[in-house]
Amino acid sequence: MFRIQDYIRDIKDFPKKDIIYKDITPLLQDPSATREALKKLLELLGDQKVHKVVGIESRGFFFATLLAQELNAGFVPIRKPGKLPFNTFRENYSLEYGEDVLEIHCDAIQEGEKVLVHDDVLATGGTAAAACKLVEKMGGEIVQCNFLMDLDFLKGRDKLNPYEVVSLVTY
Amino acid sequence: MFRIQDYIRDIKDFPKKDIIYKDITPLLQDPSATREALKKLLELLGDQKVHKVVGIESRGFFFATLLAQELNAGFVPIRKPGKLPFNTFRENYSLEYGEDVLEIHCDAIQEGEKVLVHDDVLATGGTAAAACKLVEKMGGEIVQCNFLMDLDFLKGRDKLNPYEVVSLVTY
Repeated sequence: MFRIQDYIRDIKDFPKKDIIYKDITPLLQDPSATREALKKLLELLGDQKVHKVVGIESRGFFFATLLAQELNAGFVPIRKPGKLPFNTFRENYSLEYGEDVLEIHCDAIQEGEKVLVHDDVLATGGTAAAACKLVEKMGGEIVQCNFLMDLDFLKGRDKLNPYEVVSLVTY
Repeated sequence: MFRIQDYIRDIKDFPKKDIIYKDITPLLQDPSATREALKKLLELLGDQKVHKVVGIESRGFFFATLLAQELNAGFVPIRKPGKLPFNTFRENYSLEYGEDVLEIHCDAIQEGEKVLVHDDVLATGGTAAAACKLVEKMGGEIVQCNFLMDLDFLKGRDKLNPYEVVSLVTY
């Protein structure tokens, strides 16, 4: 049986001391495991209609492109400031120390479109919440936020209330 | 008939003055156009066996993940320094001013594996050439370098001699 946690590697002290980083490159390196993870994300979505899949820079891009093709939906990147070349909407959000900004192209989502928001990891939820705000500002409707994994002790789900939040494994 | 150039948008003065940037987000937003571009890349590869598809950070990730799934191959990201959490091999390369570094995970490619290297744009070829060196250092064999587009006036193909280089449109 496929268990995604068999393809996620713990890296100690990355990106800084005392953090255990969850590395998904073993999953990406194995095409069958990638396909299984993709299938499970699609099962959790069910038969909900999706017009756009938003992937959050940059590890969210990996599965968001795959999800978009499977769903016959457009793929939309949400990026750090200065990376998107066309006109953008911006959203500030808080980090542990200081704040950061996300951007989306202003033509990426049309009023009334149904949007799936994807990232690899749900941690504190700040980034995903900012991504959802951008989508809603543009008139998009969040169908679901999905993640490969979530780090329960960081309480990210609290920030994503009232969206539907799913992940393949909880740490 | 599908013409990729109908889905690529010119952005003037990005990222700096007098540069015309080729924006592929209109392509990514359209699932049918994305599928057509993917099909054309696969046609240009033919029936060559591929074990790993290398995508270059970060716009190379979009199609590299899709190519990898279609080819039943592993996906391997090549990234800017400090982004990959596990042990890496590094390669320096020259930019117009100064130099930059690319990294690959040291377990990403096994001796003798056949590798497809992908990025969205072939410009000067410095980045792609560095990616190919990393792959060859690890014992991988470059089957092809493919790109959505190439900017012919920057002579990137010269740096990728003797690899097979293909792209869907030349500017």
